[in-house]
Amino acid sequence: MADSKPLPSLDGDPKAAEAWLRDVFEIIVEEAIQKGTSTSEKVCEWKEPEELKQLLDLELQSCGEAQEQILEHCRAVIHYSVKTGHPRFFNQLFSGLDPHALAGRIITESLNTSQYTYEIAPVFVLMEEEVLKKLRALVGWSSGDGVFCPGGSISNMYAMNLARYRRYPDCKQKGLRALPPLAIFTSQECHYSINKGAAFLGFGIDSVRVVKADERGKMISEDLERQINLAEAEGAVPFLVCATSGTTVLGAFDPLNAVADVCQRHGLWLHVDAAWGGSVLLSQTHRHLLDGIQRADSVAWNPHKLLGAGLQCSALLLQDTSNLLKHCHESQASYLFQQDKFYDVALDTGDKVVQCGRRVDCLKLWLLWKAQGGQGLEQRIDRAFALAQYLVEEVKKREGFELIMEPEFVNVCFWFVPPSLRGKRESPDYSQRLSQVAPVLKERMVKEGSMMIGYQPHGTRGNFFRVIVANPMLTRADMDFLLDELERLGQDL
Amino acid sequence: MADSKPLPSLDGDPKAAEAWLRDVFEIIVEEAIQKGTSTSEKVCEWKEPEELKQLLDLELQSCGEAQEQILEHCRAVIHYSVKTGHPRFFNQLFSGLDPHALAGRIITESLNTSQYTYEIAPVFVLMEEEVLKKLRALVGWSSGDGVFCPGGSISNMYAMNLARYRRYPDCKQKGLRALPPLAIFTSQECHYSINKGAAFLGFGIDSVRVVKADERGKMISEDLERQINLAEAEGAVPFLVCATSGTTVLGAFDPLNAVADVCQRHGLWLHVDAAWGGSVLLSQTHRHLLDGIQRADSVAWNPHKLLGAGLQCSALLLQDTSNLLKHCHESQASYLFQQDKFYDVALDTGDKVVQCGRRVDCLKLWLLWKAQGGQGLEQRIDRAFALAQYLVEEVKKREGFELIMEPEFVNVCFWFVPPSLRGKRESPDYSQRLSQVAPVLKERMVKEGSMMIGYQPHGTRGNFFRVIVANPMLTRADMDFLLDELERLGQDL
Ligand SMILES: Cc1ncc(COP(=O)(O)O)c(C=O)c1O
Ligand SMILES: Cc1ncc(COP(=O)(O)O)c(C=O)c1O
Repeated sequence: MADSKPLPSLDGDPKAAEAWLRDVFEIIVEEAIQKGTSTSEKVCEWKEPEELKQLLDLELQSCGEAQEQILEHCRAVIHYSVKTGHPRFFNQLFSGLDPHALAGRIITESLNTSQYTYEIAPVFVLMEEEVLKKLRALVGWSSGDGVFCPGGSISNMYAMNLARYRRYPDCKQKGLRALPPLAIFTSQECHYSINKGAAFLGFGIDSVRVVKADERGKMISEDLERQINLAEAEGAVPFLVCATSGTTVLGAFDPLNAVADVCQRHGLWLHVDAAWGGSVLLSQTHRHLLDGIQRADSVAWNPHKLLGAGLQCSALLLQDTSNLLKHCHESQASYLFQQDKFYDVALDTGDKVVQCGRRVDCLKLWLLWKAQGGQGLEQRIDRAFALAQYLVEEVKKREGFELIMEPEFVNVCFWFVPPSLRGKRESPDYSQRLSQVAPVLKERMVKEGSMMIGYQPHGTRGNFFRVIVANPMLTRADMDFLLDELERLGQDL
Repeated sequence: MADSKPLPSLDGDPKAAEAWLRDVFEIIVEEAIQKGTSTSEKVCEWKEPEELKQLLDLELQSCGEAQEQILEHCRAVIHYSVKTGHPRFFNQLFSGLDPHALAGRIITESLNTSQYTYEIAPVFVLMEEEVLKKLRALVGWSSGDGVFCPGGSISNMYAMNLARYRRYPDCKQKGLRALPPLAIFTSQECHYSINKGAAFLGFGIDSVRVVKADERGKMISEDLERQINLAEAEGAVPFLVCATSGTTVLGAFDPLNAVADVCQRHGLWLHVDAAWGGSVLLSQTHRHLLDGIQRADSVAWNPHKLLGAGLQCSALLLQDTSNLLKHCHESQASYLFQQDKFYDVALDTGDKVVQCGRRVDCLKLWLLWKAQGGQGLEQRIDRAFALAQYLVEEVKKREGFELIMEPEFVNVCFWFVPPSLRGKRESPDYSQRLSQVAPVLKERMVKEGSMMIGYQPHGTRGNFFRVIVANPMLTRADMDFLLDELERLGQDL
């Protein structure tokens, strides 16, 4: 039986399969690259879930479908997906479609390997090390360690685990019950992954002590110190401070030197969540926002956000040179990490992580960097800052727009105040009515497909827009469009 | 400044960028697809690390490089990478290069979105649900929950966290110190991610109680019961049993019904790590190996392994219909999961996970399934079993090969006994010398690039080969080649 018909690799007929893949690639070029980045096309093609289900013909059957049919599925999948590479996609902390990064991603997929050993990922073991070295150098470290993780949230969790392990190596074996109650400090503006991590890693969310931020969203280091003393007085053992460089909503940068001073005084691990703001280190002009980052023990930095490397690309960087990452996570599985190999098994970095199979996340960033150079990337970042500043000035000029605050970064936060609410700030239901505006405008823009901007309430502030200026394709004209479009969509409100 | 030159999307010139991407695609077709799956080409091109570094020109500079140069980098990256799609790649629990799955992966990369909300991933929110429903149906559940995770290790960790949360919902807030000492049970043959998870989630490795396996590698349910009683006697609270369907080395299937009986008697969460063996559920002929899986609380299943969907594709499936997954992990970030949206926010599944950004892992599997149908996939699996059986018979026939055991699955484990050791089994250093054979042969095959097979010691057994028969392209001729090649490589030993 086994030889009756060689099993279909590339569907039995390699030439047919290649031709078919070329057809797919042309669909990608047309739908995702050309239309997907063109301002004359929609950024999204909204459908209600029930209708979309029909359009996509999602059901999986026992019979396979014809190649032509599958091509149509490919086209539909792209057509009805949101175009995150589109210049009108301001919705998330990533936007754009860089061809070199995309090439890196596609090659990664065609090679389909895992980062565990030099044996099966020789190129990527070396490349990951090179890329991490470069990122560390930008942090200010000439040595250290690191690894790419499946996202910034998990990078942050690694930092939590490493800080715990450094303080209490026994924890790996004996668990948290063998330890005193621990305390983690982070600001009220931190990313929610700190809470998720505290729960997942068994600390419990209560172990996260929330430090006050100032009106710009920056951690107040005096309050950090106060919280640390308080925790100690309550019998908890402080061990970790998570500062943020580039907060998710306001784009604020915690004062790292002041925070590092506190950490130093108390002997605490300093982790900097620079998932969003880390890329600013590439800019000579703006990197002062992260002054002091070289004093951190660990840094999480997501090149998939501002640099547009593509999801996922998140580096956890460590100053440590004692192989803490490996000791903390290793389990020495003998089927992967044999010690009697014919090459230097220090190259088998897979045991540094809590994963087993691990995607290759370095190639897309490496190719992007090779193509742009550090200078090209720096220009992109400086340009994003400049365009964000342009947008801020326009917001200030226009009637009906109200800036939340002067941004430090490329998060531009503002209210759109529709005609019926202008000059009504004193009326008792003003805030409540203003809060209802963003959801309505969001619905309208998505249904028209003209653009996508995120909104949220925040602290005591009702819903406001957060525009992220990250797509390297953007021009001033796009900023003008964005404001004009909000006016157009909201003129009857 | 911001308008001086529109920033290079697709490098400033969309047409040039498209042409460049087409060149990249042709390189992929040639190097990764044609050569990468051809038995007349090498499966790997071994280079010592120092030489490879030179060949790859890894360093990242401040100036960008020319497009032509970048194309050469792309070619080199592929050339020096291991071809995991090659029919002579038997090294890992995945092998092959399916064109439809690859198309799904490439489209995923070109869309570059994240699974958090219906807003930015409408197609994939619905598609993930459909694919998970299909996988659940194969487990035997007509309802339930689930999510794709970044690998089986993390799927296993989710199960641990969910089991803990169901028993002690307080743990999320208060942490493990508020709980009694907990005990997890798994067999000596389990995947190392159970230990890694126990450490990461704060239980500590000591909380994992190792249950004996029989000589075929299957968990002994009587020993499970004994261990549970022992743990209780020692004051620990049993809460979770991790059974394995398809162990990593031997490919053994734990007796799920017997294990489920024990779990039922003791009120324990049953997690089945079917990362490797789950795909057998598609085969009418072989799915009996997982009889009882429908009694599990959770199942981890990696379609990136036997089905060749591509890394990463790992489903965590749950029988639960109470929204446990969401309750356990949610943190209700207001900037993503606004409750005042214009669509049903139950579609925003992103808060079910500990990640924030999450890759789209469903499309590659969905396209593969659409193209092959359940029947096509079933045939692949049946064929892999049949070819593994053919290999076993050949191993038994040939002098110098010694089977470790009759496999249940597609892991074929055996020693190659070189001429100088044949008939010497009684000599005192036999085992030790035999153990040195596999590393030498591995070095030779890799340096020649003729094939790649993993080896490992296991229990009291010294190094033996583990051939994984997973690539759908394989024929009997490849099995014959494999054995001939081992004989050729080892004839002088
Ligand atoms: C400050 C900050 N940290 C961490 C993260 C999490 O990154 P990821 O989505 O890669 O998990 C985010 C995501 O937006 C973030 O803004
Ligand atoms: C039985 C088993 N479970 C879990 C895993 C982990 O899967 P992943 O590599 O996706 O983390 C493996 C990997 O080989 C495995 O064999």
